[in-house]
Amino acid sequence: MNLFDQVRRITLIEQISSVLSWDQETYLPSKSAEYRANQLSYLAAHAHELSTSESYLSALAKAEAENLGTDPTHSANLRELRRKSDRAGKISTELVARESSIESAAHHAWIEARRQSDFSIFAPHLQSLVDIALQKADLWGFPDEPYSALLEGYERNTSSQEIAKLFDTLQDRLAPISAAAVEKSKSLNPSLPEGIYPLRAQQDFNAAVAAEMGFDFHSGRIDTTTHPFCTTLGPQDIRITTRYDLNDFTSSLFGIMHEVGHGLYEQGLPSDDFGLPSGSAVSLGIHESQSRLWENQIGRSAAFWNKFYPIAKGYFPQLKDFPLEKFLHYINRAELSEIRVEADEATYDLHIILRFQIERMLLKKEISIKDVPATWNALFEKSFGFQPKDDAHGCLQDIHWSMGGIGYFPTYTLGNINAAQLFQAAVSDPKIKSATEEADYTPLLAWLRKNIHHHGATHDPADLMLLATGHAPDTHDYLKHLTTRYL
Amino acid sequence: MNLFDQVRRITLIEQISSVLSWDQETYLPSKSAEYRANQLSYLAAHAHELSTSESYLSALAKAEAENLGTDPTHSANLRELRRKSDRAGKISTELVARESSIESAAHHAWIEARRQSDFSIFAPHLQSLVDIALQKADLWGFPDEPYSALLEGYERNTSSQEIAKLFDTLQDRLAPISAAAVEKSKSLNPSLPEGIYPLRAQQDFNAAVAAEMGFDFHSGRIDTTTHPFCTTLGPQDIRITTRYDLNDFTSSLFGIMHEVGHGLYEQGLPSDDFGLPSGSAVSLGIHESQSRLWENQIGRSAAFWNKFYPIAKGYFPQLKDFPLEKFLHYINRAELSEIRVEADEATYDLHIILRFQIERMLLKKEISIKDVPATWNALFEKSFGFQPKDDAHGCLQDIHWSMGGIGYFPTYTLGNINAAQLFQAAVSDPKIKSATEEADYTPLLAWLRKNIHHHGATHDPADLMLLATGHAPDTHDYLKHLTTRYL
Repeated sequence: MNLFDQVRRITLIEQISSVLSWDQETYLPSKSAEYRANQLSYLAAHAHELSTSESYLSALAKAEAENLGTDPTHSANLRELRRKSDRAGKISTELVARESSIESAAHHAWIEARRQSDFSIFAPHLQSLVDIALQKADLWGFPDEPYSALLEGYERNTSSQEIAKLFDTLQDRLAPISAAAVEKSKSLNPSLPEGIYPLRAQQDFNAAVAAEMGFDFHSGRIDTTTHPFCTTLGPQDIRITTRYDLNDFTSSLFGIMHEVGHGLYEQGLPSDDFGLPSGSAVSLGIHESQSRLWENQIGRSAAFWNKFYPIAKGYFPQLKDFPLEKFLHYINRAELSEIRVEADEATYDLHIILRFQIERMLLKKEISIKDVPATWNALFEKSFGFQPKDDAHGCLQDIHWSMGGIGYFPTYTLGNINAAQLFQAAVSDPKIKSATEEADYTPLLAWLRKNIHHHGATHDPADLMLLATGHAPDTHDYLKHLTTRYL
Repeated sequence: MNLFDQVRRITLIEQISSVLSWDQETYLPSKSAEYRANQLSYLAAHAHELSTSESYLSALAKAEAENLGTDPTHSANLRELRRKSDRAGKISTELVARESSIESAAHHAWIEARRQSDFSIFAPHLQSLVDIALQKADLWGFPDEPYSALLEGYERNTSSQEIAKLFDTLQDRLAPISAAAVEKSKSLNPSLPEGIYPLRAQQDFNAAVAAEMGFDFHSGRIDTTTHPFCTTLGPQDIRITTRYDLNDFTSSLFGIMHEVGHGLYEQGLPSDDFGLPSGSAVSLGIHESQSRLWENQIGRSAAFWNKFYPIAKGYFPQLKDFPLEKFLHYINRAELSEIRVEADEATYDLHIILRFQIERMLLKKEISIKDVPATWNALFEKSFGFQPKDDAHGCLQDIHWSMGGIGYFPTYTLGNINAAQLFQAAVSDPKIKSATEEADYTPLLAWLRKNIHHHGATHDPADLMLLATGHAPDTHDYLKHLTTRYL
């Protein structure tokens, strides 16, 4: 079987895992968790076995030898498959299966630990997760520190020292903006009209917005979960989930706009190349730029609500006499909260920087697992001026570590930075600017399709940003956006 | 890896297919059908490869050689695994994958053919399905006719000649009962009060009934589909689906009671032996006996409704002044209809016998594919006195052939026969009889658990019936039941 057929077969198996994971988060009966974990572990090992097999390696070598170098997409595909293969080849199938089991157990322990706000329940699992992360980093190798080896899996060709530098600058510049934004927001006393925002009305309004953004419901769907996410189950099967707050329809709406941003990226990838690098998302930092662009640059803008606020009133009668201006204050309020997923734009990155610092200290062994809660609380107080009320609202709040996602957090802030930069580049075209001001997003989506989606993973993320915007990612547009919106 | 570990691993993979199939029927976006078909085809081939591998065969031979014969369950497991292995070994992995592709294409063609009521769209696919069925029957071998080799996959150790004999008797005795039941029912002019039976109220009432029957919602769930079914996704994951008629709550209710009957069997199998014969359902004829027992023996009985009619009135106010007696006439009405899935107990088997006859003629090559509609209509007229209005209401109405299920239909009637016989045996215990008359089904379920569920597939279906009821399956109790209920 030739290389690309083998790649497509491995992808087919990986997408089977995605179906099982999606079902696990949405519909799985409680007693079936263990069996499902065994199925996922089997599939992970099976896919890994195929992607490190003799047959795969020789097909890759053959394709490389036969490559004439005249087709840049083909060359990029081979280059990225080689990168992936070299990385996978350093990890044994046994380690993949063991990691999957550790993550399943850790995930259950984390749920219980968070429920009881008892870090000691999660601590031994976090130790195993960090141990296995370090083991993998050692196998993969790294130029500077283990963190870079983990980050590579989410954001290729990006070192943790670059991130540290970027985040240091950001933190310095962000601190006064956040503080001022919070002060200003407090003075506006933002609120939303009371009364139930019915589930069905929320679902219908969200679906109308998603369709307007360009989401294809014949290639995707929306379901309900505790933790909103977007996942790809196949080239024409993009699933979004959200949760509903009956007292605040904007909670599910911004969740949907965020996840639809991810979904549009997935639906916009070249579907004939599904599974190949040229048909795959390039990195989490680029992925998150798509979700944050739609959620924040668009979803919290006055232009969007000039069109959609009257429509929202049709779904939610209590908005009828509530002025648009006050509504905009509400959805753009800034406040210092303990919970990352509830944080606003002006303070969100402070949460990310804190997590990056803790992960890095753990991997450098500057702190040990038992120090995590105290370190978290101390760093949190430095940025936010108070301590979380308990670990459930502190170091136990996020799902990521429990799923083995150490090194993942920085990509959220990269996403914010990229989103602002991409949006600025897009609206520098007067046609896109004027359409966007009329809340017509067809030209904007077309720009994203052409400049981001259609490239798949053929360029490094930083190069893709350079090609799309004319400069490598920096914080300029993002800080300008925050200043304009919040101050 | 020892034999049982290998069996469990193959089961694990087969259950992954079940997850994908369930999702395909419930939530899959329309454009993703082809990719899903490829995934299912891959998994079918992969599972088949493992179950016919050298490693599997030698583990089986080793276990057989080491078997001391002192543990009857262990011996039964080895005997049944040998039977399955010999059968699987005769089919190539290539044939399994090809069959899966043919079925996917046939299924889509059937949907379209039924929609347009145009048999010619489905005909070439049906030809391929019959060809592959005959090819498999030849590979498997048979003592009498190819039909038996196919039937063996659903109802082991049962020949098509036995079925033919049983059905001939049944048809002769059933014809006058059906005719009289239809006449009598017509004179009662059965009806249900008009007005919408709201979806949510139907779902809540159904769930209450399912729980009362003993269905464990921590090991299962109910979703919505066009075609109701019950499927097992793991040892603690039994999924039921139904559809809703807003003008008639009894449609989804009896659908649920039927599928919950299947679900209770699956939930009652020894879960530690999941994947082994001792932890598996024995046959479709026994499976269907469980669903039909709960749907018909229980669900359409006066005893059930003495308890549940007042409860139903709480959900559906329009029943308030409608007498129970008239309601019982409605749910036990008999009529000559074209559609099998809407048929009542008194006429259902006439539909099955017709399908059995046509399948048998096709496999014996007594008729060709193009003759199917005319043969169907002629046989239908003989039994029902009129012809279906079109092929969508005739030979295109059922999903089974399009999914490769040739030889499957007879098990429905076996289920009806077994259900009556099991119910009679159970209520011959006075304690079970009196509890059942009070609509307390705990003792009945305990009897089914002990006499059917706990045995898994360690006995042949006919032997299991003999052990549970004292005699091999015959039509006596069933005909008596129909006579009592309808005449």
